[in-house]
Amino acid sequence: MNHARIQGVLSPVVTPFRSDLSPDAERFVRHCRWLLSQNVGLAAFGTNSEANSLSADERIELLEHLVAAGLDTSRMMPGTGCCALPETVRLTAHAMKVGCAGVLMLPPFYYKGVSDDGLFRSFAEVIERVGDRRLRVYLYHIPPVAQVPITLGLIERLLKAYPDNVAGIKDSSGDWANTKAVLDAFAPSGFDVFPGSETFLLASMRAGAVGCISATANINPGPIARLHATWQAADADRQQQRLDEIRTIMQSYVMIPALKAAIAHWGGDPAWTTVRPPLVPLTAAQAADLVTKLEHKDFQMPGLLERR
Amino acid sequence: MNHARIQGVLSPVVTPFRSDLSPDAERFVRHCRWLLSQNVGLAAFGTNSEANSLSADERIELLEHLVAAGLDTSRMMPGTGCCALPETVRLTAHAMKVGCAGVLMLPPFYYKGVSDDGLFRSFAEVIERVGDRRLRVYLYHIPPVAQVPITLGLIERLLKAYPDNVAGIKDSSGDWANTKAVLDAFAPSGFDVFPGSETFLLASMRAGAVGCISATANINPGPIARLHATWQAADADRQQQRLDEIRTIMQSYVMIPALKAAIAHWGGDPAWTTVRPPLVPLTAAQAADLVTKLEHKDFQMPGLLERR
Repeated sequence: MNHARIQGVLSPVVTPFRSDLSPDAERFVRHCRWLLSQNVGLAAFGTNSEANSLSADERIELLEHLVAAGLDTSRMMPGTGCCALPETVRLTAHAMKVGCAGVLMLPPFYYKGVSDDGLFRSFAEVIERVGDRRLRVYLYHIPPVAQVPITLGLIERLLKAYPDNVAGIKDSSGDWANTKAVLDAFAPSGFDVFPGSETFLLASMRAGAVGCISATANINPGPIARLHATWQAADADRQQQRLDEIRTIMQSYVMIPALKAAIAHWGGDPAWTTVRPPLVPLTAAQAADLVTKLEHKDFQMPGLLERR
Repeated sequence: MNHARIQGVLSPVVTPFRSDLSPDAERFVRHCRWLLSQNVGLAAFGTNSEANSLSADERIELLEHLVAAGLDTSRMMPGTGCCALPETVRLTAHAMKVGCAGVLMLPPFYYKGVSDDGLFRSFAEVIERVGDRRLRVYLYHIPPVAQVPITLGLIERLLKAYPDNVAGIKDSSGDWANTKAVLDAFAPSGFDVFPGSETFLLASMRAGAVGCISATANINPGPIARLHATWQAADADRQQQRLDEIRTIMQSYVMIPALKAAIAHWGGDPAWTTVRPPLVPLTAAQAADLVTKLEHKDFQMPGLLERR
């Protein structure tokens, strides 16, 4: 295990918007600070961050706010993968410049059915153009959304060509067989695997993963981080079961507005419910239903209210 | 029919790149000028333009080059739909500023399974923010690539809310039943339908379409434009059959590199073969095979070589 690398539980930080749909940097910094206080790192600008609904300028500005607020960049793995090569290069170089531990990189996702040759060339161009030995790229495999997969063959080629830069993967396939195959093939040689949901946290840790990057870590960070820290403890299966109960409730809604509704409720801050189109907020009835279900499980967000 | 609106055959203009993958404005202007000379309009920055592989800055700069070269903006319908609302607004406002006839607007395409409410809100925000009565939006329905459809219900809602701005649709579903349903429902009240392939040109014109926007118009513009102009002539079915023969050959390759290979060959300009990742060029063998098949059909690109 390479301790210089980022590990543990990370949250694809939800992005707050003002009523005019502009990013709300102040609330963003506050939420990131709370996540760090819960021992959860910052995979800002992921799928659950509405990152692709932000312009490149907006992402850069929000990241600058985190840095200016003094948040620990060694706990940051911002998403930088765009459809357009120059934008991916620009965001990746910026993340490196401000000292982020790594970047989470979607493949270009507009064209479907592209070849592994073309995807290899995409990642290779970014790595070559950024040209920084410190760069740590975490490949982002999320076929249900991007529809463009990161295959085992592609990982192998990238690792061979750029062993210092290709550091790991977030596997959001939701397919345990794929996560297990990636772990078996590449984890023994130091490739860092993060499943994309805490549902697979315990099984993944037992199979050689280094953490997870999960939407639900936005609202349930402490318990997820605790399972990561104590996965070899006697109560690990019980902890996993408890995490799954919360996850199951969240997954019965559209995830992003549901996360924001929970933060709005437990943070006492209704402004958090705003999403950018094409997403829509939960209805008032859905939000109330969500809160009731979570309360029924004694769900809490300790310290969130105090940080307003 | 509203003669102030753009009609006829348009080409999603392929974007030339230099060997360092930067956009080649000079070749771009030259190709656009040739297309206009063949009576084909410019749907620059479409799917076949690798538009989503370009940054917003690159698109704006290329469009500025067309304007500076004196090309007719009343024949232009650039693509402006991005995943991020601010970028769609920026590109759309710019296209309006330079006098383009309209814009071709993809829905935000990262999130899948989004609601018509969310898509309505996306288009509505763009129209409201651009805030220009002259704006003509052509909705871009291309479910095989974007994976986010423009439904008949969404068209109806948008037309009701913004009758002056929502001008038409490019239907690249490849599904004649859908194109026919859109034509039947909305063409009679002046909604302009462009099928996304000349394969459907004759059938669409007979059913009330106003033209087509087709990849193949990059290389076969004259004959496609002639069928549009003479669709009521006695030889129309024969013309359609001839167009289909060329289209069928092109469709047996990955379209974008195949278009560029044809332009490189008939234009005597090998630099045209460059594509941005995640696409890859045709192999030399594929390109030679393509040329042989097209030559076998007496395919030509008249005037292209002279315009170098």
